[in-house]
Amino acid sequence: MNIVLGPLPDNRRQLCDLKHHNTLAFPKMLARHPLRNPGAFAASSRCRCARTSVVVMASSKPKFQLMVNSCTGKMGQAVAEAALRANIDLVPYTLCAPMDIEKKTHVTVQGVQLELVPPAVRDVAIADIKARYPNLIMVDYTLPDAIHDMVDFYVRHNTPFVMGTTGGDRARILSEVAAARTYAVIAPNMGKQIVAFQAMMDMMAKNFPGAFSGYRLRVVESHQSTKKDTSGTAKAVVQSFVEMGIKFDVSEIELVREPKEQMEVMKVPESALNGHAYHTYQLVSGDGTVMFEFQHNVIGRTTYAEGTVDATLFLAQRIAEKSETTLFNMIDVLRAGAMR
Amino acid sequence: MNIVLGPLPDNRRQLCDLKHHNTLAFPKMLARHPLRNPGAFAASSRCRCARTSVVVMASSKPKFQLMVNSCTGKMGQAVAEAALRANIDLVPYTLCAPMDIEKKTHVTVQGVQLELVPPAVRDVAIADIKARYPNLIMVDYTLPDAIHDMVDFYVRHNTPFVMGTTGGDRARILSEVAAARTYAVIAPNMGKQIVAFQAMMDMMAKNFPGAFSGYRLRVVESHQSTKKDTSGTAKAVVQSFVEMGIKFDVSEIELVREPKEQMEVMKVPESALNGHAYHTYQLVSGDGTVMFEFQHNVIGRTTYAEGTVDATLFLAQRIAEKSETTLFNMIDVLRAGAMR
Repeated sequence: MNIVLGPLPDNRRQLCDLKHHNTLAFPKMLARHPLRNPGAFAASSRCRCARTSVVVMASSKPKFQLMVNSCTGKMGQAVAEAALRANIDLVPYTLCAPMDIEKKTHVTVQGVQLELVPPAVRDVAIADIKARYPNLIMVDYTLPDAIHDMVDFYVRHNTPFVMGTTGGDRARILSEVAAARTYAVIAPNMGKQIVAFQAMMDMMAKNFPGAFSGYRLRVVESHQSTKKDTSGTAKAVVQSFVEMGIKFDVSEIELVREPKEQMEVMKVPESALNGHAYHTYQLVSGDGTVMFEFQHNVIGRTTYAEGTVDATLFLAQRIAEKSETTLFNMIDVLRAGAMR
Repeated sequence: MNIVLGPLPDNRRQLCDLKHHNTLAFPKMLARHPLRNPGAFAASSRCRCARTSVVVMASSKPKFQLMVNSCTGKMGQAVAEAALRANIDLVPYTLCAPMDIEKKTHVTVQGVQLELVPPAVRDVAIADIKARYPNLIMVDYTLPDAIHDMVDFYVRHNTPFVMGTTGGDRARILSEVAAARTYAVIAPNMGKQIVAFQAMMDMMAKNFPGAFSGYRLRVVESHQSTKKDTSGTAKAVVQSFVEMGIKFDVSEIELVREPKEQMEVMKVPESALNGHAYHTYQLVSGDGTVMFEFQHNVIGRTTYAEGTVDATLFLAQRIAEKSETTLFNMIDVLRAGAMR
């Protein structure tokens, strides 16, 4: 049997359409299937299960060029590095703040020079950049203060963008971008696995209300000492636990900000004291015979940068297929499956 | 405003129909709402949110009588104790194996004497028991060897039952009970929270394929040394992780069966060496900057016994409302929300 598959983005789902793979009766076969590793097989190959020939259509990965703004900042820099690791074409420009251009004209990302484009010239520069890079996607990691200004800019030039910047009036941003039908992925947290964990807790609460009724909860989170407020992720997860029947207020979340305690109690490596996000949720049944513990510990920015790159790959695919839906979040990216 | 609520089984959903409670915008109010604690408020009371009077219809909890079979065994004994704690009417009989009756005629559960009913007389005895206890539900925790025989018995007498016994031909059991339309909850694991955790992992895998692509997995489980095989729960959870993009085979699950290691590494209390189920799943990203850890540690049988009692309460409610669906599992019990 020959099966012609479309572009790769949906390969996993298309794979499931093959009759002998369309249930979970063959999980191992599915896991080993060459389509799970798109880079590892030829344009036409025989499935290892030996029952199906798989023909993959050409141009499976849409071409696009990525411009990462605020590469003067740590998060922009991390995303640009992740894009280079993923062999994505990086546009040699980066939008910057007015004060950045007073200090320097370029930033370097792993040997690649990016020219700073300050606000004063960006509306002119963008026309030239778009002409030279026709499939342009931008990434935005500016500051909460600048978020509305940046959104207006992307919408004005109808430039697809991935926005990981936090803050601003989120409802206003989403409605503006949706109304303009500018392709975008907007999410305050680009860490795919963390978002998946949060979504999972939310699903559990919606599906199984009261599942943890009678349980006691303890939540401890550790972040670099410059972070003064309580973790937004911890607050969201606590909300799910409350829906599962647990009495708990977000004010009971324990914040660890002292380096000594971070290293000794939370086991944060010394090198990560200035940039980490450790969370532990512990649930104990009323009689003490059952204990659940969920931990997610992140060091540095890599996972957020990698998730951002996944979001750009996802967005390029939606643009290539002329998706009717134009505005997405990280849940959409997760639902689409592995991007690479 | 007066709102008349129906029987309690669906109280939470009915509560959500009250207009000012019908979104999750008031989660705290919902959590504190007297309807979350059905036992704690009068038949007619004013909602604490002070905007709605709530009138609860009489006979909100359907009356039923519970007969726990195999009370000669530890699990039957634990369920009978949990039923007494929940103020459920316990029928003073328990079906037993042929050899049990050779040793004794009664077992005692917290001062309550239960008469053993051996296989030879059970078909005669059941008619008398059903006449005396018209809303009879049975609980089954016999041995894998006896499971088909017991299912045939419940079906033959059309006796609603909750079955936590493992083993047997599961597909055959489910089709037989469904065809007979005997009300039943059948599940190989009655630990509500464990089942919720498994279901959550399964949902995550189905919704977010490849979410943990590139992660390394380590799974360690500890059980009493008499358990020779690998934990079924661990195997099911591993399957979900594989669907999330992780390369892992169930043969890689690490089994801890040595008391010394159980106490020192897994932190199992000495008193629980003969009856515990500890599971740790650790996921680490390819570059080592992200770590997730999920643990569920159970001591003894209480949580399974409590879950079984929840299943009987759930089943009594389905019978009282003459549910069209007759066969259920623990996911159905979880979806119905807190039972008490």
